[in-house]
Amino acid sequence: MKTALIILAAGKGTRMNSDMPKVLHPVGFAPLLEHAMASGAPLEPAHTVVVAGHGLNDVRAAALTYDDTSTVVEQTKQQGTAHAAAQARETLSGFDGAALVLFGDTPFMKAETLQKMTAALETHDLVVLGFSPADTKKYGRLMMDGDALERIVEFKDATEKERAITLCNGGVTACRSELLFELISQVGNNNAAGEYYLTDIVGLARARGLTATVVTCDEEETLGVNSRADLVQAEAIFQTRARADLIENGVTLIAPHTVTLARDTVIGRDTTIEPNVVFGPGVTVESGATVRAFSHLEGCHVSRGAIVGPYARLRPGAQLAEDVRVGNFVEVKNAEIAAGAKVNHLSYIGDATIGAKSNIGAGTITCNYDGVMKHHTHIGEGAFIGSNTMLVAPVSVGDGAMTGSGSVITSDVEPDALALARAPQVEKPGMARKLFEMLKAKKAKLERGS
Amino acid sequence: MKTALIILAAGKGTRMNSDMPKVLHPVGFAPLLEHAMASGAPLEPAHTVVVAGHGLNDVRAAALTYDDTSTVVEQTKQQGTAHAAAQARETLSGFDGAALVLFGDTPFMKAETLQKMTAALETHDLVVLGFSPADTKKYGRLMMDGDALERIVEFKDATEKERAITLCNGGVTACRSELLFELISQVGNNNAAGEYYLTDIVGLARARGLTATVVTCDEEETLGVNSRADLVQAEAIFQTRARADLIENGVTLIAPHTVTLARDTVIGRDTTIEPNVVFGPGVTVESGATVRAFSHLEGCHVSRGAIVGPYARLRPGAQLAEDVRVGNFVEVKNAEIAAGAKVNHLSYIGDATIGAKSNIGAGTITCNYDGVMKHHTHIGEGAFIGSNTMLVAPVSVGDGAMTGSGSVITSDVEPDALALARAPQVEKPGMARKLFEMLKAKKAKLERGS
Amino acid sequence: MKTALIILAAGKGTRMNSDMPKVLHPVGFAPLLEHAMASGAPLEPAHTVVVAGHGLNDVRAAALTYDDTSTVVEQTKQQGTAHAAAQARETLSGFDGAALVLFGDTPFMKAETLQKMTAALETHDLVVLGFSPADTKKYGRLMMDGDALERIVEFKDATEKERAITLCNGGVTACRSELLFELISQVGNNNAAGEYYLTDIVGLARARGLTATVVTCDEEETLGVNSRADLVQAEAIFQTRARADLIENGVTLIAPHTVTLARDTVIGRDTTIEPNVVFGPGVTVESGATVRAFSHLEGCHVSRGAIVGPYARLRPGAQLAEDVRVGNFVEVKNAEIAAGAKVNHLSYIGDATIGAKSNIGAGTITCNYDGVMKHHTHIGEGAFIGSNTMLVAPVSVGDGAMTGSGSVITSDVEPDALALARAPQVEKPGMARKLFEMLKAKKAKLERGS
Repeated sequence: MKTALIILAAGKGTRMNSDMPKVLHPVGFAPLLEHAMASGAPLEPAHTVVVAGHGLNDVRAAALTYDDTSTVVEQTKQQGTAHAAAQARETLSGFDGAALVLFGDTPFMKAETLQKMTAALETHDLVVLGFSPADTKKYGRLMMDGDALERIVEFKDATEKERAITLCNGGVTACRSELLFELISQVGNNNAAGEYYLTDIVGLARARGLTATVVTCDEEETLGVNSRADLVQAEAIFQTRARADLIENGVTLIAPHTVTLARDTVIGRDTTIEPNVVFGPGVTVESGATVRAFSHLEGCHVSRGAIVGPYARLRPGAQLAEDVRVGNFVEVKNAEIAAGAKVNHLSYIGDATIGAKSNIGAGTITCNYDGVMKHHTHIGEGAFIGSNTMLVAPVSVGDGAMTGSGSVITSDVEPDALALARAPQVEKPGMARKLFEMLKAKKAKLERGS
Repeated sequence: MKTALIILAAGKGTRMNSDMPKVLHPVGFAPLLEHAMASGAPLEPAHTVVVAGHGLNDVRAAALTYDDTSTVVEQTKQQGTAHAAAQARETLSGFDGAALVLFGDTPFMKAETLQKMTAALETHDLVVLGFSPADTKKYGRLMMDGDALERIVEFKDATEKERAITLCNGGVTACRSELLFELISQVGNNNAAGEYYLTDIVGLARARGLTATVVTCDEEETLGVNSRADLVQAEAIFQTRARADLIENGVTLIAPHTVTLARDTVIGRDTTIEPNVVFGPGVTVESGATVRAFSHLEGCHVSRGAIVGPYARLRPGAQLAEDVRVGNFVEVKNAEIAAGAKVNHLSYIGDATIGAKSNIGAGTITCNYDGVMKHHTHIGEGAFIGSNTMLVAPVSVGDGAMTGSGSVITSDVEPDALALARAPQVEKPGMARKLFEMLKAKKAKLERGS
Repeated sequence: MKTALIILAAGKGTRMNSDMPKVLHPVGFAPLLEHAMASGAPLEPAHTVVVAGHGLNDVRAAALTYDDTSTVVEQTKQQGTAHAAAQARETLSGFDGAALVLFGDTPFMKAETLQKMTAALETHDLVVLGFSPADTKKYGRLMMDGDALERIVEFKDATEKERAITLCNGGVTACRSELLFELISQVGNNNAAGEYYLTDIVGLARARGLTATVVTCDEEETLGVNSRADLVQAEAIFQTRARADLIENGVTLIAPHTVTLARDTVIGRDTTIEPNVVFGPGVTVESGATVRAFSHLEGCHVSRGAIVGPYARLRPGAQLAEDVRVGNFVEVKNAEIAAGAKVNHLSYIGDATIGAKSNIGAGTITCNYDGVMKHHTHIGEGAFIGSNTMLVAPVSVGDGAMTGSGSVITSDVEPDALALARAPQVEKPGMARKLFEMLKAKKAKLERGS
């Protein structure tokens, strides 16, 4: 059965104490919303509808960044979960499959749980997520008769006997799309908050003789983020899991708790990650590479045998081929570095292609910005860039060419040529001593004067 | 009632295994002594008297650094707490308010606890701090009759029944100043250690028909640092609390346990702190700024919208205006950077003013030190400093001016002018190939020779 | 009694999910094998025989790196612990002392435990290591009669009563060398796995009327690494212990859990280690030094009073004398820096000697590599190297000499001389404004065109 995701993401999240909409707060360097969308992605949804309200434009941007086929609809006023889900009605008009209502602030839902829910629609009209928490708190209780969900009792309305039931309402709901909106349209707001609750469709369905059932999941899957303390907890859970996954897959993490991973970090087997490394979004590291301490990677690719860091910063678009070395205090941005090339010290390589087996001296800078536009630098295979060379882009250094230390290279350099831009060394005997004496005298005079 | 603080800070701290006086060991980058002084600061004390002994000069310097109106008196020989407190007598001669005797090695005392103690002097002659620890160990026990403190029983002297009492002596004492010194003068040293114990004034007061009472606090407030293990524990408690406070106040700490805070760190709401950031003393970050990973800040101010790091080092006197960017491997010291200016890569900016919206190229260095003195660099609004420009201070670059990449700027540059100091590029065709061959031949010869 | 160590290190470690032989996985930046070898080192073994199989060459290299007098023998096929130990027979032929059979994947064995085992050979023919784990799992049980070890019962063969015994087999075995190999030669492989088990020598010894006994140790000492999860646990145990040892010895570790130590890290009393510091192998830091945040040290020596970092990288061969300062974004490799010298910012010092009290300006680079060979730089006492000086090695700067900022120094500089290599500053009035306008027009045109 085809599936549509309806992701509720309109809340303000007052308890977050933030101007940013709640679902945009990050876990693993990705917005909570992205985690929710990603949990549904393996179902290959025909439609993904994000219901946004607070921070509409920012939420829309985040949704489209993750999935540019998703639709963001506005809930202008927050009037409850049924009202929120109803905003997807128009988008899903005519859609003849399963609709899954998820929460944008719940990052750990597993795809397999969602798949079980849509599968259960083969035998039931309505499927509700259930979980058995360690502490049942004031969650709504799921009243079952065998595998049939009879009704949901809110905690405040529950008898003592009902409260003793530990199967709680996880909120996520699956239903055929048309039926979902039909049921939602019958939900009323005759309650203390004056809101329309999605939960109420269970009663409505049962009243019509339809069947409902429950799919259960681990408590952690239902963790919703409502406060900054929740967010810190969610981040910790995410990192602990992500690190354990890498370790199990054969990655060497010397000090796992000092490594920060992103939602989409990919690292190959027998790659070593030293302590204090940060992986921002969009990083892949192949097998058999080494990422040394204090490195910071974002949007980059590191190939087999490459050694990165310590103190290497790889920014988006950095592509390191096999056996490349990027050393300390080096920044690489939007640059392809071919196999075996070395950029070992104190350099900025931006908007560039660097040839195989070339050696980029300490202090090399690609001067890619002229104050208005960015330009490209090309360095050929086997080139030797002397220390502190300024490559004023656009500029190209040929294969096997060499630049003298301290040169400002403004014109292209032919292959195998040596380019120099250097003033001759002049020596003034005894002058250092005189200068020191003069400066000291000046200082003494100033101090006497003050 | 006016208050005077008497802070006992003379101990050597033998168990610290250190040459540094115990009260100068840091928690949150501030000496323990500073924490003790700060806990009393909200009482706006008329006098703060620090009783020092070991490391007198260093302790004096630390006390005056925090509060230059404080008085440091010497206890030449450590003869017990009463003897220590007595050293404040002369300084407080004629002072007609409350005296609070605190410990310089006890960093977590809350001001409100101290305020309760001075307030209790309205109804009692003597006020002692009490706490109910999880483990009562060998603490002295407080014998109460209602809210009246009858006596303090040392553990070694206590009966089994008395030991069963869980209200313990926290040591901190409040008393009207004149009465305090009167009582102290009657304390004897007829005990195993031959020391004068402040605790004894309770008995002396009661014997004179004076009243005593107890103000209670949490156990953590009484945590004294006596060993390096205690110090590690105190630091951990401090950091855990400080991080939680920030999170509650709406700061986004992605990985709280990797962020180190100082006693006086101030960070605004919706500012993001990435993993692995160190805040030394004296840092304020406004709301809506971003401090990226691996940044190190001390004595600086970061304004709204500014982005700092990764790998940015802001040293004392760095003042970043709104929307400033200080990027990777950049050090800023004693420099004002105006709104919207960018210093993105591999630079040292020291003793400088940087104009709004200027762009400071990679590798720029303010050469502020001539070997004897430091000098100032000024860069105008909207200036463009080419990569690897050396600004030999004192020097000024005008508004809208530009410097060529790799230039050494020794004279002032007029507004809108372009300044260059650059040797022309010369190319020697085929020379790189020849050099490589020559060097390889030389190496081969050397290797044959060895 | 003379001792020989037989270290079993042939296993593949399938559960490590790695191409690297198990015993080469690191804890505290040293291979597990090195820890095992180091645990036996205080016994001053006459022979150390490492039995290798998987990854023979790499294991041999690691063994010889730690102890170049050790012998590595090959076990071509892994046929059990007795078969592995038998590979040491030839090497120990004629050796008339105690043989200790250890495991290369067990890093925490204490020398004193091993010493107790060899000492017990004075009174018994065979000594087996025993431990009483919190969870006895499926360990073999040691059946004692007083201090005599009667037999070892494998868990699968044990009766319920035998399983209730909590003294378990730790595997390590001590025996006179000749007797050991005699017993081993009688071990059969008539078991499910078809392997030769070292454990069987206890039964063989007892059958011959020889005596056996047990030396016990803490469970942690027996921790063997069989999976990456074990490795992570071993690293955590190592770090926790190593940090606690430093703290107890008077080192100030502000945030111990953020500091990574190596097996051989040595740090003196009253030295301060700030948060986020990595100590690779081979580092000694004297008393009273300071290592600031985000520093990375390997194979280097830091003397009393020196201040390193933040963001300082000391590589192998960096030797810092007293009161040296190495500041932020500075890399030092194979260089001796004499007392009081300062390298404070953004520099690369490699293959160099730096004179006392010299000042190395920001951005200084020793250009030590010409594309083929490395060369040496010498800087004299009290020299002043201007910012961004390139020192093209081999080159020498005399005592008290000075180089101008931005100079490329290719020839030696005499003492007290000033060396400059600098193009004169040229100013083009109004040219910056024109350039900006031109570039903006060009950009606008490009954007219209696109």
